[in-house]
Amino acid sequence: MKKIDNFKSIIDRYKVVFFDAFGVLKNYEGLLPGIERTFAYLEQQNKEYYIVTNDASRSPTQLAESYHKAGLNAITADRIVSSGMLAKEYLDLKVNDGIVAYLGTEDSAHYIERSGLHTLPISQIDSSNIEKVNALVFLDDEGFSWVNDLNKTVNLLRKRTIPAIVANTDHAYPLSVHDVAIAIGGIARMVENIVGKEFIRFGKPDSQMFMFAYDLLREKGPISKQDIVMVGDTLQTDIWGGNKFGLDTVLVLSGNTQPKDAENRITATGIVPTYICDSAVVEYDELGF
Amino acid sequence: MKKIDNFKSIIDRYKVVFFDAFGVLKNYEGLLPGIERTFAYLEQQNKEYYIVTNDASRSPTQLAESYHKAGLNAITADRIVSSGMLAKEYLDLKVNDGIVAYLGTEDSAHYIERSGLHTLPISQIDSSNIEKVNALVFLDDEGFSWVNDLNKTVNLLRKRTIPAIVANTDHAYPLSVHDVAIAIGGIARMVENIVGKEFIRFGKPDSQMFMFAYDLLREKGPISKQDIVMVGDTLQTDIWGGNKFGLDTVLVLSGNTQPKDAENRITATGIVPTYICDSAVVEYDELGF
Amino acid sequence: MKKIDNFKSIIDRYKVVFFDAFGVLKNYEGLLPGIERTFAYLEQQNKEYYIVTNDASRSPTQLAESYHKAGLNAITADRIVSSGMLAKEYLDLKVNDGIVAYLGTEDSAHYIERSGLHTLPISQIDSSNIEKVNALVFLDDEGFSWVNDLNKTVNLLRKRTIPAIVANTDHAYPLSVHDVAIAIGGIARMVENIVGKEFIRFGKPDSQMFMFAYDLLREKGPISKQDIVMVGDTLQTDIWGGNKFGLDTVLVLSGNTQPKDAENRITATGIVPTYICDSAVVEYDELGF
Amino acid sequence: MKKIDNFKSIIDRYKVVFFDAFGVLKNYEGLLPGIERTFAYLEQQNKEYYIVTNDASRSPTQLAESYHKAGLNAITADRIVSSGMLAKEYLDLKVNDGIVAYLGTEDSAHYIERSGLHTLPISQIDSSNIEKVNALVFLDDEGFSWVNDLNKTVNLLRKRTIPAIVANTDHAYPLSVHDVAIAIGGIARMVENIVGKEFIRFGKPDSQMFMFAYDLLREKGPISKQDIVMVGDTLQTDIWGGNKFGLDTVLVLSGNTQPKDAENRITATGIVPTYICDSAVVEYDELGF
Repeated sequence: MKKIDNFKSIIDRYKVVFFDAFGVLKNYEGLLPGIERTFAYLEQQNKEYYIVTNDASRSPTQLAESYHKAGLNAITADRIVSSGMLAKEYLDLKVNDGIVAYLGTEDSAHYIERSGLHTLPISQIDSSNIEKVNALVFLDDEGFSWVNDLNKTVNLLRKRTIPAIVANTDHAYPLSVHDVAIAIGGIARMVENIVGKEFIRFGKPDSQMFMFAYDLLREKGPISKQDIVMVGDTLQTDIWGGNKFGLDTVLVLSGNTQPKDAENRITATGIVPTYICDSAVVEYDELGF
Repeated sequence: MKKIDNFKSIIDRYKVVFFDAFGVLKNYEGLLPGIERTFAYLEQQNKEYYIVTNDASRSPTQLAESYHKAGLNAITADRIVSSGMLAKEYLDLKVNDGIVAYLGTEDSAHYIERSGLHTLPISQIDSSNIEKVNALVFLDDEGFSWVNDLNKTVNLLRKRTIPAIVANTDHAYPLSVHDVAIAIGGIARMVENIVGKEFIRFGKPDSQMFMFAYDLLREKGPISKQDIVMVGDTLQTDIWGGNKFGLDTVLVLSGNTQPKDAENRITATGIVPTYICDSAVVEYDELGF
Repeated sequence: MKKIDNFKSIIDRYKVVFFDAFGVLKNYEGLLPGIERTFAYLEQQNKEYYIVTNDASRSPTQLAESYHKAGLNAITADRIVSSGMLAKEYLDLKVNDGIVAYLGTEDSAHYIERSGLHTLPISQIDSSNIEKVNALVFLDDEGFSWVNDLNKTVNLLRKRTIPAIVANTDHAYPLSVHDVAIAIGGIARMVENIVGKEFIRFGKPDSQMFMFAYDLLREKGPISKQDIVMVGDTLQTDIWGGNKFGLDTVLVLSGNTQPKDAENRITATGIVPTYICDSAVVEYDELGF
Repeated sequence: MKKIDNFKSIIDRYKVVFFDAFGVLKNYEGLLPGIERTFAYLEQQNKEYYIVTNDASRSPTQLAESYHKAGLNAITADRIVSSGMLAKEYLDLKVNDGIVAYLGTEDSAHYIERSGLHTLPISQIDSSNIEKVNALVFLDDEGFSWVNDLNKTVNLLRKRTIPAIVANTDHAYPLSVHDVAIAIGGIARMVENIVGKEFIRFGKPDSQMFMFAYDLLREKGPISKQDIVMVGDTLQTDIWGGNKFGLDTVLVLSGNTQPKDAENRITATGIVPTYICDSAVVEYDELGF
């Protein structure tokens, strides 16, 4: 583990950079000031990059648009790998027909749909269609009534032996400097404990997320895991998952992990990043253009 | 483990009977038909009995009233030991002043109040009073907005280092022959996982429940644990807890544990009741009066 | 939570003191220098005290002797409550005959024996006597071959549906300032995970330990939980268990919890002692005699 | 889920078959009688196949030799994907120099070695070389003294912040029709619980195992996940992992899952195979050659 002051010098050592989104590129106030310079530098150097994010609330296209609106045009939909895309791949491969019941907003359900599959919010499942439900997906913490629809979800899973897919493993997400909100991954864990069945969870630290991005990379040409560095603010997801997949990793201190806690948490968890860096921002005077 | 056809013959071997409530005395349709004969026999034989129940939604007085309305007058408030009473005892002993925030109905909060303590629903906690909150209690799954108040609860526990008390450890409770509802113990586990702190949980199988009833018994005269039998329908709470406390135990098959599953579940869990019995109902022709 | 410099002033507020042993009265170098003054003061003030310890390796008599040899005569066998005593009480109440198989030393097995029960080390269980085994007890990490006897234990519990009792819940214990050893509680957890059954575990933080000591106290005369303070060095066992039982608690910084970490660990776990104190030693000049 | 009598008809639907080893191809008595016909049929039909096995005790070459000795020559080293190979890949990518301490036999350590890395059994780690240890690997349950070396392992991980790699996630493995043995994955979980750090675990159900085999396949030509079927005897590893990776799955009833329990376990766990089949053996009269 090396403490490095200079994120640019890390980029210089690799051909590809994988970025976590929240706490690395943006926070509850919006984009990290100066993060656009990092992407300007990556493009100038012809480096590849991907955003690898536990987010199933929107499609990659919608996620990309939100970056564009904030002023970061470098992040296009084809550079985003989200846990929602893995949920969609699962449904594409494994669920052939019938209804996919979901917890989340209409937006979150829209992009997992395809011909042959019908998505329905859990609130619309009743005795007339319950036998046609072939999967349940936890997509977002919004868009449904917690008390009604979570109780309904528990009973659906007691009555039907169907796969339950969790499209975002996070248990909470930050709302402001002081507040968090319960994420759909935390809600899904409660339901899983109650029904006592094994859910299928997509999202970092699971290696399938990294594999998805790695496969996109390999379509473009030969690449080795040693050419890639994963940048994240959370030891248990970004760093642990990146390490396990065989990547070098950078812990940035702009999000979940505070500068004063970093060393203690690394020692306590045994999760060791290759580098520690204040943030993923490349300084103006480092750009050289 | 003995399979016994005759609940009366079990009563005859002990001086005291502890009963679980749901699945033993009542189910979602009301009292078990004939259960009043069991209490008539207990009273005729001068046997002591207590109801030991994971319920914090109402006071013992209110719980007793619900039995009386259903036609079972034998169950008086002083014979009910609920997990809510342990939560109340904890507050009495350990929280001297300030606000106790709660999740539950007004009814559930009413009986844990006392002079010096002010109970407030979590919805009424804000920046003006958050510093006065000295404890949080999970009482009931009703009486609050899940989405708003659970998020608020998570943030309260991130900001204040205060005890969080779970007054009912159950994760779900039955609503009908086919449906269950998420219980406050399941919700509390989700919050505990998210905030990463250790909550204080009251309710079977924890031995403090059995101890509370045992202490009430000992106030009336000398008694040994060998004089008591615990009757319940759930291996993991009633039987495991009763065994660990040193009591003989009866698994009845009128609730959570189905007759066809009993042997398999005992083998799978390693939780062995002293007896298995169809139900806690004493037959009419056994009464002899 | 109050930081208090002076352990004597805590004693002065209570009628009874419960002490954890390791990290409070002694450490790997022997007795804490000056701890005998604490007991001199307790006796001079006619305060009651008990040692409440997760230890099943020896009988209370043998434990008391070890204090006497070290020069602390105040700790007599009748003042020691060990998790091993709870295991013994369980066997007395719940196992009527046959063989109790055990993992541990002969010493540890000796004191749980009684007429009617035959204790046998797991190494001596074979096809000739396996059907007579009515309980298994995890007593100590020494006295057996780990590789042979742990594999044998797993297979015993797969073949026989019998209670498995863990007489010490600790997962590790300190050997020196730098080293720990795996405790029988950690080994038992591994076996429990493999066989998938529910073991019965005795020891702090479980309230049954505190109840046992409280019952001994009550035999001597009326007492309230508010008259008792629990002193320990470990948040998750001594303090959490003491709090849950309704006792005031003192975290001492002479053992598991380092002075520099105390505040952080309290915030992280949400386990709040009533007081924090450097150690349980009463200073010479405070004694006044 | 379809109950299929005829394993050959499943093969006919796919281009590639992944097999678990134990419980599918062999059991404690040796190869499943007739299993050589399955591989004869696969070769005759020009189907690809891989063995995907949680085994880190030997190299693929040694594993292949054991099949050859038993009379099954079809399984060559290049068709075996073991969890040990993932551990080796991790070390290749992430540990550049120094000592890799291990628990296991010399055989198990041999194949993870490479130039620049020095493997040493944990018994040979002492104060002279502890600072050079850059990783710890759990390889096999044999080849070391449990009591000495497990205690040493705990203390190594308390002193050094290094990755701990578990090269086989299984907690137990079968020895005979009645007996199992504790596997290194179960031992590693105990150590992980004691030291409180996050270990890196390789083996089914983790998707990295399936990805490794899938990558080998793709080197040979274009293939889709829909062309592959995973065959296993264990719901929680083979079937759950195969499903999550997006493969169709076959539960065979020749190993861990008994015919009488299959339906119950599927309902209880919510893990649903695409097919259930008695075994992976192709019958003689189905071969047609």
